[in-house]
Amino acid sequence: MGNKVAIFDSTLRDGAQAEGISFSVEDKLKLLELLDDHGVGYIEAGNPGSNPKDLEFFARAGSIVLKHARLAAFGSTRRRDIRVEDDSNVQSMLLAATPVIVIFGKSWDFHVTDIIRTSLEENLDMIRDTLAFFKTKGKEVVYDAEHFFDGYKNNPDYAVRTLQAAVEGGAECLVLCDTNGGTFPSEVAEIVKKMVAQFKVPIGIHAHNDSGMGVANSVIAVENGARHVQGTYIGFGERCGNANLSTIIANLGVKRDFECLPADQYRNITRVARHVAAISNVALNERDPFVGNCAFAHKGGMHIDGVNKASQSFEHIDPELVGGQRRFLMSEVSGRSMILDRIREVDPGIAKDDVITDRIVKRLKEMEHEGYQFEGAESTFELVIRKQLGKYRPFFELEHFKIIGEQPANGEYSSSAIIKVIVDGRDEITAAEGDGPVHALDRALRKVLDNFYPELSNVRLTDLKVRVINGKDATAAKVRVLLQSTDGDSVWTTVGVSTDIIEASWIALVDSIEYKLLKLEDAKQA
Amino acid sequence: MGNKVAIFDSTLRDGAQAEGISFSVEDKLKLLELLDDHGVGYIEAGNPGSNPKDLEFFARAGSIVLKHARLAAFGSTRRRDIRVEDDSNVQSMLLAATPVIVIFGKSWDFHVTDIIRTSLEENLDMIRDTLAFFKTKGKEVVYDAEHFFDGYKNNPDYAVRTLQAAVEGGAECLVLCDTNGGTFPSEVAEIVKKMVAQFKVPIGIHAHNDSGMGVANSVIAVENGARHVQGTYIGFGERCGNANLSTIIANLGVKRDFECLPADQYRNITRVARHVAAISNVALNERDPFVGNCAFAHKGGMHIDGVNKASQSFEHIDPELVGGQRRFLMSEVSGRSMILDRIREVDPGIAKDDVITDRIVKRLKEMEHEGYQFEGAESTFELVIRKQLGKYRPFFELEHFKIIGEQPANGEYSSSAIIKVIVDGRDEITAAEGDGPVHALDRALRKVLDNFYPELSNVRLTDLKVRVINGKDATAAKVRVLLQSTDGDSVWTTVGVSTDIIEASWIALVDSIEYKLLKLEDAKQA
Repeated sequence: MGNKVAIFDSTLRDGAQAEGISFSVEDKLKLLELLDDHGVGYIEAGNPGSNPKDLEFFARAGSIVLKHARLAAFGSTRRRDIRVEDDSNVQSMLLAATPVIVIFGKSWDFHVTDIIRTSLEENLDMIRDTLAFFKTKGKEVVYDAEHFFDGYKNNPDYAVRTLQAAVEGGAECLVLCDTNGGTFPSEVAEIVKKMVAQFKVPIGIHAHNDSGMGVANSVIAVENGARHVQGTYIGFGERCGNANLSTIIANLGVKRDFECLPADQYRNITRVARHVAAISNVALNERDPFVGNCAFAHKGGMHIDGVNKASQSFEHIDPELVGGQRRFLMSEVSGRSMILDRIREVDPGIAKDDVITDRIVKRLKEMEHEGYQFEGAESTFELVIRKQLGKYRPFFELEHFKIIGEQPANGEYSSSAIIKVIVDGRDEITAAEGDGPVHALDRALRKVLDNFYPELSNVRLTDLKVRVINGKDATAAKVRVLLQSTDGDSVWTTVGVSTDIIEASWIALVDSIEYKLLKLEDAKQA
Repeated sequence: MGNKVAIFDSTLRDGAQAEGISFSVEDKLKLLELLDDHGVGYIEAGNPGSNPKDLEFFARAGSIVLKHARLAAFGSTRRRDIRVEDDSNVQSMLLAATPVIVIFGKSWDFHVTDIIRTSLEENLDMIRDTLAFFKTKGKEVVYDAEHFFDGYKNNPDYAVRTLQAAVEGGAECLVLCDTNGGTFPSEVAEIVKKMVAQFKVPIGIHAHNDSGMGVANSVIAVENGARHVQGTYIGFGERCGNANLSTIIANLGVKRDFECLPADQYRNITRVARHVAAISNVALNERDPFVGNCAFAHKGGMHIDGVNKASQSFEHIDPELVGGQRRFLMSEVSGRSMILDRIREVDPGIAKDDVITDRIVKRLKEMEHEGYQFEGAESTFELVIRKQLGKYRPFFELEHFKIIGEQPANGEYSSSAIIKVIVDGRDEITAAEGDGPVHALDRALRKVLDNFYPELSNVRLTDLKVRVINGKDATAAKVRVLLQSTDGDSVWTTVGVSTDIIEASWIALVDSIEYKLLKLEDAKQA
């Protein structure tokens, strides 16, 4: 038995079953290309017969030439008591025009008798017929033995007979599914070992995380001879999710010598995980193994000391192997040296024990306490440092602004803003309309500043993120507004916090403009 | 060997090492009482010598009479080359005045030689001396064998000798620690089994989650004879966290017959987990096994159908056993039958193939396409159904509202709202101020409606979530606003979507009020 393990990603199918996930066709195509570039062996999408979105996906996916992955469509065995050719669901899977077809069938006798309500013999025919049908169409056929472990524990003979029926139908892989996620690793080890010994066809594992052991069940299955692992790349799926492939790949391919991806791809695991999260519009769990932001973050003083002496003292792998980064968290010593690096980018003359370093650290901690977060808001971070260092001057002063929002909207826009600013003693007032208060305010501010700083004309907002945060004081809900801006060449991000969303947006907006003007000034002086 | 497993919670100590966690003394005392009420066997806090907060905690914890738990202080073996009595860290642990003392020492020869830099023999003396010292003080003494598994793999003889030294010092439990979280379940099984056979003293397990297998490693250790499990209740800790005790307890005590908690406490697992999250000011991961909001949430049509026929078809345990709740989610992939169930709650006479059912499904899909999401917004969902069924009347009509936001704020509040509504031909106009536009609008709406519907006076907003979504059209960023409201008895949630945050909030606000008024009307008619 070789060391090659087929990685089978079901983010587009089982992942779409997760609460809060809703993919557009564009999202699915992006994920397909991302995972294919990464070297994943199989990518499973849904059934083109189930909804028009999947139909469109397969039509468009057909014209993409995949480098590594084989695309799979997924569906059930034929229904009971009809010919496979007459089953519309079976027929519709052919519309996907994929090289691989995954058929799931019932391996737990209870599901046969109580859920789909047919005879045990008919169920075996359903499995055999359906696989044989797709074999005659030239497909690579994978059998997903749904609830295999529950079935095996309840009636081992029948569960094994379903696998035999699949082999007779032409299955090229027998995937043992822990559909309900309730099986323990010790049970998986024992049952997988028996099936590997009994069947010549490769054995696969499909685990869920309902007992918090989806990864362990997958790893232990491979240790006992399974060579095909199904899961979703960052683990989301029905209920508690599927086995997390990014974790499994790192365990098997980085910590052990199984071959899961092309050799140069392990270092991309972290990047790919974050990209999957971004496309799926979910936050990657910060404590996720290998790929989470905390995975190699050290807080305890002794841990930091140990890692500085020898990284393996408190790290199970070198973070670089999965493209991760070691971080030392804001505990007096570690935090300071990190902040100092940033301070020195502004003023190389500052030392670690200067009074000003203390003052900056103190100010940053105060702001964090208020709800600020500087990860992903580096420009505001730099402005805070500049303000403390005296390397900052305000480019304009706000006299006041007023926002008016109204419903029903009186014309195209529902909001308008009046703003008055003072620059070098001169004042100017103007107004603008927009789609919502922030949009109106942004347009009014740009318009009024245009009189003084025409070089701002090519600056625009590219992203706005609003997040409700719970400050230490639970009585007032604060919001954090993150703005991303661009001038066409570079991109910068700023942040504002307030109980009032307009004020939070204003703070981030002012930082965005001032940051740009500071950079222009620096460029002129250089 | 009995079935009793000692549950040892380190949320107050190892949990405090997690990124983003910062406990006040009050928080720690609340957690202590919560976990003690829950029946946890041991609760570990820090070292009173390490910081004044811990000193205050132990002083105040001393006056609390615990019902179940034994409180533990935690510290290192004495430093090298001094007498144990002269070690200030050792002495300071006595200030905790706890019945239990946990001493961690080095079991990996590499750590002895390269990190603490002493001889292998001196390290054995340090372990033996320190435990013996606390035994003479009448303490229950637990030995945490740091990096035991890494140590055993590198030099099994030496690792075992450190445990022997601990036994000679009087250790009442030998805890094998996977400090770096890199050990696989198959290795844990083998090594724990050997140590259980070799030592008469009970063996414990302390796992971390860096390989995503912290829970599995703990469970498999118990299956192989360990009878003491260390972790943190909801799993946060250094880096990827500690083994998650809520998951482990549910696996061992609910799915297997190990005795981890008093028999009546398993149903409180979900409540306690949420309470720990609230006190710790972290969001409980929604996909956490057993206790997460998604743990028993079904989205796929076939899964919903199966669970309706027999819950064990897609649930590994009855959610009630851990105090959880089954949920069926609304979405494109959830079937008509589930939408039909919701329609029938409003009008039992509607059938699956009625034209109106089609119309409702179509309307829901349109709204999802616009950016609506009905998961967690069941009240808006019900209103959509009522509107389509004609079982809805508007309780008020908006004539218009105007919001004014200004900076600098002119007084306490930065926003004010004017609103005019018509109810049964009568109109009314009023104004209110607030912290931000939504707050002002909410207050103005309640105030103006109070003239017509005084029964709304006890309704208030309890949560507001804003999320920027990417509509199909990328030029305008849409926001989705989720509102949670309560009247003291029940809680309901509504949703609004717009490119204008004020409009999105307004939509959700109107739904919230109308939903409450409809329920009052229903109650009157019943």
